[in-house]
Amino acid sequence: MTAPRTQFSLGAFLMQTGHHIAAWRHPEAQADAGSNFRHYVKLAQQAEAARFDAVFISDSSGVRSRNLASLSRTARSDQFEPLTLLSALAAVTERIGLIATASTTFNEPFNIARKFASLDQISGGRAGWNLVTSSGDGEAENFNLSEHVDHSLRYERAAEFHQVVTGLWDSWEDDAFVRDKESGLYFHPEKLHVLNHKGKHFSVRGPLNVSRSPQGRPVVVQAGASETGKDLAARTAEVIFVAHQTLAEARHFYSDIKQRALAYGRQPDELRIMPGIFPVVAATRAEAEEKFRYLQELIHPVVGVALLSQMVSFDLSPYPVDGPLPELPPTNGAKSRQQLMIDLARREGLSIRQTYLRIAGARGHQQVVGTPKDIADLLESWFKDGAADGFNIMSPTHASGLTDFITLVLPELRRRGLFRNEYAGSTLREHLGLKRPAHASAPGSAH
Amino acid sequence: MTAPRTQFSLGAFLMQTGHHIAAWRHPEAQADAGSNFRHYVKLAQQAEAARFDAVFISDSSGVRSRNLASLSRTARSDQFEPLTLLSALAAVTERIGLIATASTTFNEPFNIARKFASLDQISGGRAGWNLVTSSGDGEAENFNLSEHVDHSLRYERAAEFHQVVTGLWDSWEDDAFVRDKESGLYFHPEKLHVLNHKGKHFSVRGPLNVSRSPQGRPVVVQAGASETGKDLAARTAEVIFVAHQTLAEARHFYSDIKQRALAYGRQPDELRIMPGIFPVVAATRAEAEEKFRYLQELIHPVVGVALLSQMVSFDLSPYPVDGPLPELPPTNGAKSRQQLMIDLARREGLSIRQTYLRIAGARGHQQVVGTPKDIADLLESWFKDGAADGFNIMSPTHASGLTDFITLVLPELRRRGLFRNEYAGSTLREHLGLKRPAHASAPGSAH
Repeated sequence: MTAPRTQFSLGAFLMQTGHHIAAWRHPEAQADAGSNFRHYVKLAQQAEAARFDAVFISDSSGVRSRNLASLSRTARSDQFEPLTLLSALAAVTERIGLIATASTTFNEPFNIARKFASLDQISGGRAGWNLVTSSGDGEAENFNLSEHVDHSLRYERAAEFHQVVTGLWDSWEDDAFVRDKESGLYFHPEKLHVLNHKGKHFSVRGPLNVSRSPQGRPVVVQAGASETGKDLAARTAEVIFVAHQTLAEARHFYSDIKQRALAYGRQPDELRIMPGIFPVVAATRAEAEEKFRYLQELIHPVVGVALLSQMVSFDLSPYPVDGPLPELPPTNGAKSRQQLMIDLARREGLSIRQTYLRIAGARGHQQVVGTPKDIADLLESWFKDGAADGFNIMSPTHASGLTDFITLVLPELRRRGLFRNEYAGSTLREHLGLKRPAHASAPGSAH
Repeated sequence: MTAPRTQFSLGAFLMQTGHHIAAWRHPEAQADAGSNFRHYVKLAQQAEAARFDAVFISDSSGVRSRNLASLSRTARSDQFEPLTLLSALAAVTERIGLIATASTTFNEPFNIARKFASLDQISGGRAGWNLVTSSGDGEAENFNLSEHVDHSLRYERAAEFHQVVTGLWDSWEDDAFVRDKESGLYFHPEKLHVLNHKGKHFSVRGPLNVSRSPQGRPVVVQAGASETGKDLAARTAEVIFVAHQTLAEARHFYSDIKQRALAYGRQPDELRIMPGIFPVVAATRAEAEEKFRYLQELIHPVVGVALLSQMVSFDLSPYPVDGPLPELPPTNGAKSRQQLMIDLARREGLSIRQTYLRIAGARGHQQVVGTPKDIADLLESWFKDGAADGFNIMSPTHASGLTDFITLVLPELRRRGLFRNEYAGSTLREHLGLKRPAHASAPGSAH
C-alpha cells in the first residue's frame, strides 16, 4: 500500500472549438479547429507547459447527428481521427500524456494493439487508450450494420477485446530484443510469446509485431458508467473518466468502483477516477457569469433540443421546448447518460430548454462558474472527500478557456499544494502514479 | 494532354534498418530502427532536404514468418504501424509526401478513409495510401480467419473498398464549411453528400466526419502486379510501385498498364509508374562491389532460404541449398512475386542459394551495384525508354545507404536535369504532377 497522493491529476479534454456547444461562434474561438492541426499543437504545448498529466481526445465514428438543421449549426462534423492526431502531436511534445479514444465495436484488436503500442514507442511512453463501445447515431451504419449492436453484446465484445489487446502488448518480454550484430541474433526466441487467443468474438494468434513499449502497456482508460460499464472498468481500467453533477454522486461512484476493484483483487490505487469539470472562470463571479451568459445566448434552440435528444437517445423536437422532459423509453445507447439527464431534469424541475441550457457546456459533467477560488474549492473538496483522484478539464472555449484555467486556476491550486509545479516522471504512468505492469510471464503477474 | 515530364519522381522506401535482409548487422546500421522514432525523423528529414517526392512505408499485419530460427535473425519483427509513424513524421516535416500502406483485407473502409483524410489535413496535403490486399504468413490468423482470403475475393473486396473510401473522401464539397459565426451556420447542408454505399462486401452510409482534404483525395498507390492487380491499378491507382528485373519487362509492364488505363477512360499521365531500385553505390565499381559483398556475407543461410521460401510461398528448407529451385505449386499468395522468382532462377540457372543471394537486397526489384554514373545511366534509360515515371529507392542500409544515394547519385541526376533542385509545389500531388481531383458532384467528374 503506497501513501495517499497529496496532489491530483489533470487531463485537458481537447474538443475542437471548446466544450460549449456554441463555442465556435465565440469571437475568440478557432472556428476551423476540427481541421486545423496548428490549433491542436498550440493547445497540447500549452497544456504541457502547464504540466497537465495528459491531453485527451474523444471520438465518434461518424457525424454526430442526422438532424441536418442542428448539425449544420455545430462544429462537430469535421474532426481529426484521434490516433492520427495524437501521433502527430507526439512529435511536437515531450512529456505530456496522449490519450486517444478508439472503439471496440468497429475495430479489430490486432490493429488497435499495434497502433497504441506504436504511439507508446514514438512518444517515449505517453500513450493512453480510452476504450469505448460505440452507440452513437449513424456510427453502426458506417460499418456494415443496420443498427447499433446491443448494449450487453457490445460490452461482452469490449471485455474480450481488452483481453486480446493487453495480451498482444505482452507478445515480447522487455529484454527480448538483443540485436547482437556479431552473432546475428536479433531476438531471443524464448522471449517471444504467441497469444493464441480463441474466444467468442475473436480468434487472434499473435504475436504483435511491435516490441514491448516503454510503459509496458499503454494506460487503459474507460468512461462507461452503466452497471456493465462500471464492472468492466473496475476489472480492467487504470483511469476512469466520468460525469457527475453532485459531490454525493461522485463520492458514491468513487467508493463503489474502488470496492468493485478490490473484489477483483486490485488495489484501489491501481485505478484513477477523474470526473469531467467544465469551468467558466473569471476574476469575479459576476464576470464569470457574464462570460457564461454570453456563450449560452449563442445556442440556437434547434441545436439545444438536438443535443439533449442525443443525450437521452430520444427525439425531443416534437415536444414544447418550455414544457417538461417527457417519459423516456429505455435506450440501447448510453444508458448512464440518459439517466443522468432524467435525474437532472426531475431533481430541479427543469423544462426541455432549461435542461439543454444546463448541459450545453458540460454535457452532464460538473459545471462551475466562478472565481479561481470557487473552482479550486470545488476541486479540492472532491479530491479530499474521496470523490476524485483527478479531473478532466473541459474548457468552454479553445484556446481561451484553457488559457483561463491555466493562468487563473492553476496558480491557486499550486498555492494549495494540490498540483505539481514540474513533472516528476517522463511517462503517462509516472504522471498518474500508476505502476508499470510486469510482463505476463513474470512470477505473480496479474495478467 | 500535358507535355511529357522531363524530370522523374523519387520515393524513399524506408524499411527499418535498410532493404538488405542482413542490413541490421552492418556496423553502420541502426539495429533498433523498428522502434526508434528518432531514426525515422532523421531519414524523413534527410529525404525532404534532398527533395524526394515522398517517403514510403510498407506493412505487414503480423510478424513476417513463423520460422523462428530465421525470424529471430532478422530485423523484421518490430516495426511501427505505418499510419502512426507517418502522422508523427508529418509534424516534423514540411513538404515531403507521406505514403503509408494499409490493408483492405483487415480494415474497415470508414476507418481508412478517416485516417488518410486526417493525415492529409495534418500534413497540408501530403498523404498517400498504398492500397494492398494481404496474403502474408500469419496475418489472417490475427484477424479471426483460419487461412488467407482467396486471391480473387481479396481483389474484389479491394476494388469495392477503394470505391467506398474515395466516395467517403467526397462527403463534403470543398467549400462546404463556411463557419459563419454571425449567422450561426457552420456548413451548407446542400454541400454535404451522403454516400449510402450498399455493395457485396460493404454497406457504408457516410458521410465522413472529416472535411475534404487539401489534395481533394489522398493519392492512391498500388503495387499489385498479378493480372487482377494490374487491372485494379489501371482503373484506380495514381501511383504504381512495381518490381522488375529487366528493362524489357519494365517497358512491357509500363505500356500494358497505360493501355489498360486508356481503356478505362483515363489519360496515361494520371498514373505514375515507379519501379523499385536497390542501389549499392560507391565512387568506383570495385568499391561498390566490395560494399555489396560485405553485406551478402552477413546473411545466415537459414535467413536466406526462409526469405526465398516466403517470396515463393513455399517452404524450401527441405531442398539442397545448392540445388535448383524445385517445381512450385500455384500460390494463393502474391502470384506475381512467385513468378518473378521462378523466372529469375530459370533465366539464369540459379541454385536456391544463388537465388536468395540475388534477392536478399532488392527482393525481386532491380538491383544495381556501381558508380553514380552507372546508377544514373540506368535510371535515365528506364525513364527515357518508357519504362518508368520515377523510382522508389530501396537503400541497402539506413541511413548510410540513403546518404550515399543523396550525396553520390543525386548530383549526377541533377547535372543531367533529371531531378528537381527545389520543390515546385507543396502537396504530394504537385510533386508527382498529378491533378487535384474535382469533387464527385462537379460537372464531368470521373467519379
